[in-house]
Amino acid sequence: MNFQTLILNAGAERRLRAGHLWIYSNEVNNQASPLKAFQAGEQVVVEDARGKSLGLAYVNPNNLICARLVSRDLRYPLDRSLLVHRLNVALALREMCFDQPCYRLVYGESDSLPGLVIDRFYDIFVVQISTAGMELHKDAILDALNKVFTPQAIVFRNDGKMRGLEGLDTYVEVAQGEVPEWAPLSENGVSLVAPILDGQKTGWFYDHRENRARMMSLVKGKRVLDLFSYVGGWGAQALAAGASEVICVDASQTALDVAAENARINGGETRFKGLKGDAFDLCKALTADQERFDLVIVDPPAFIQRRKDIKNGERAYARINNFAMRLLARDGVLVSGSCSMHLTRESLVDILRGNSRELDRTAQVFAHGHQGADHPIHPAIPETEYLKACFMRVLPGA
Amino acid sequence: MNFQTLILNAGAERRLRAGHLWIYSNEVNNQASPLKAFQAGEQVVVEDARGKSLGLAYVNPNNLICARLVSRDLRYPLDRSLLVHRLNVALALREMCFDQPCYRLVYGESDSLPGLVIDRFYDIFVVQISTAGMELHKDAILDALNKVFTPQAIVFRNDGKMRGLEGLDTYVEVAQGEVPEWAPLSENGVSLVAPILDGQKTGWFYDHRENRARMMSLVKGKRVLDLFSYVGGWGAQALAAGASEVICVDASQTALDVAAENARINGGETRFKGLKGDAFDLCKALTADQERFDLVIVDPPAFIQRRKDIKNGERAYARINNFAMRLLARDGVLVSGSCSMHLTRESLVDILRGNSRELDRTAQVFAHGHQGADHPIHPAIPETEYLKACFMRVLPGA
Repeated sequence: MNFQTLILNAGAERRLRAGHLWIYSNEVNNQASPLKAFQAGEQVVVEDARGKSLGLAYVNPNNLICARLVSRDLRYPLDRSLLVHRLNVALALREMCFDQPCYRLVYGESDSLPGLVIDRFYDIFVVQISTAGMELHKDAILDALNKVFTPQAIVFRNDGKMRGLEGLDTYVEVAQGEVPEWAPLSENGVSLVAPILDGQKTGWFYDHRENRARMMSLVKGKRVLDLFSYVGGWGAQALAAGASEVICVDASQTALDVAAENARINGGETRFKGLKGDAFDLCKALTADQERFDLVIVDPPAFIQRRKDIKNGERAYARINNFAMRLLARDGVLVSGSCSMHLTRESLVDILRGNSRELDRTAQVFAHGHQGADHPIHPAIPETEYLKACFMRVLPGA
Repeated sequence: MNFQTLILNAGAERRLRAGHLWIYSNEVNNQASPLKAFQAGEQVVVEDARGKSLGLAYVNPNNLICARLVSRDLRYPLDRSLLVHRLNVALALREMCFDQPCYRLVYGESDSLPGLVIDRFYDIFVVQISTAGMELHKDAILDALNKVFTPQAIVFRNDGKMRGLEGLDTYVEVAQGEVPEWAPLSENGVSLVAPILDGQKTGWFYDHRENRARMMSLVKGKRVLDLFSYVGGWGAQALAAGASEVICVDASQTALDVAAENARINGGETRFKGLKGDAFDLCKALTADQERFDLVIVDPPAFIQRRKDIKNGERAYARINNFAMRLLARDGVLVSGSCSMHLTRESLVDILRGNSRELDRTAQVFAHGHQGADHPIHPAIPETEYLKACFMRVLPGA
């Protein structure tokens, strides 16, 4: 194929050589290769200032991240054949780590497929495209999935916020097959369902899988509070692991309805309670009622979306975790999660340390959790790492 | 009891109020309470500059860390009764997390027992005392262990390097009962033995337990190289998990003999090979012989002991991991550990990123491992966190 050339400023190749895949618009030599001359999504050969090729990228002149490397080998552009290859490579990691075909099959840049996320629910595939460069290959993605798998259905959940930056519209589309409203899945040996058409993101958050597995090992016979429960990913697995009671708190009744179904599937309907409302308010109410829990899960939405939100966001994490800690029994466990990329693990621990001191309690961090193996971290792209879970034992002060 | 008072300089109480337990010698008001007037190990009431009590500490005028808080409540000094209480609290965490009585029972400051480490091998307890303050309570420790457990034997492995700083001599002593040369233990459901009298530290490193469990889930039918194997903690568990072949590399023949026994116990003697020698040299030799492994474990001793060693240490980590990566098969897994407190997780990942780029390979970090739950992290004492394990998939370049 005949690709145009994108020429970088001197020195701008360094990040790419270190392994990163992104090119920022101010790194392009606009004299030699005007960004505006490229079509959104078009593939280009990337060259450094000395004319050395760095690989193939797709371009979007409208975004700050104006190009993403798709291949370091000029022989292999992004096409059906490369997609098939990359899907197979991604699949091999998941098959090494999981015994059920329910996982994030493709995690964007980390699987060398920038702008593409695919979550798998057995033979239902939920695809999220976030860039113009990947959107151009929508048909090739369908072809590739059909080549590597035998899909029952393929859904595009192309309604992510990132698409705006790329000049893409948002839509949800069942591209192939038929899908149930709630798709079945398996996580940590537990059967569950996820609302793939109208739930958050792809309908399920596989990223906390391992943290939920650890939580399961701790809750037999225990009373559990699941804050920001969404569809009960934590709560239903706590019930499956023998928790004596689980209260799920979420602002969405629709989410709590799915959570109730997940509780029922696992024989936990009589031990399950859903509380609709604001997690902060409901914590206050539970505290006023002198309720106590052996284990509290705090898994809020990202309180920090951008770097400038860090201060306010940290205050929000401190507030909700303070509430959660107050609700713990004498020797209780706090599972505190954060999906904010901009909140460091050290900051989260320090927030919890501060909370424990304020309440005059002694704390031990007995485990640190991360995003699961189906959300691999690209070692050159810190942006691919975001999830934290801190397992903290909270004791009476001494 | 009548304790003397240790008076701090203004502001020096802040770290303690934040949860830390250490007092440095330059934080003491030497006019009001001359450090030299205290006996090594003596308990004192700690007061801030305004005369507010912060709790009880034991002192050592000879060490830079001149005092460690043992209690924030003046009613509870360090004695047999507090030791019994703290042992029970520590035990409860381990019983929550493990189904066999083989673990680090007490992890110093993190279990509110500064200067004390106890590793448990069923009913054999191996105790390490590292401070004069704790050494004074040696008999109380024996009493407390006998109160809470029914020990078959209690061993003091009081031969750690830290003792010199405290003016303590080093010795190994079987204080009670009789011990076999190699004590039995169980880790991740695997039966093993550890040389508790003359091995490294207490004879076994329980800290990597979870990382070894993850490794076990990856090695069935695979060829494994275990660098710096010591007594085969990783290697023997790989064999138990069905690895087709395991080569353990260590500089100590004594350690390799125990590793061979651990292989034998797990029915792996014909799949086990021990190579005695320098890990760097042996990696070169294996590379020259074009040997390849599906999974390589790099678990070296701390290459960084002090802050000033960081640069050289990082170079050593880079070198050994480069060697390890070269020995990987096409789609291989590198398990790269570091017990250097001064090496950050970010630095370790960046070292591995650099290695993968040098070898023109694509890398995915699919899991991050930490020290196990029996080595809890004290949220106010960063020094209690030291262990890292990075699970990296290494693919052909693209």
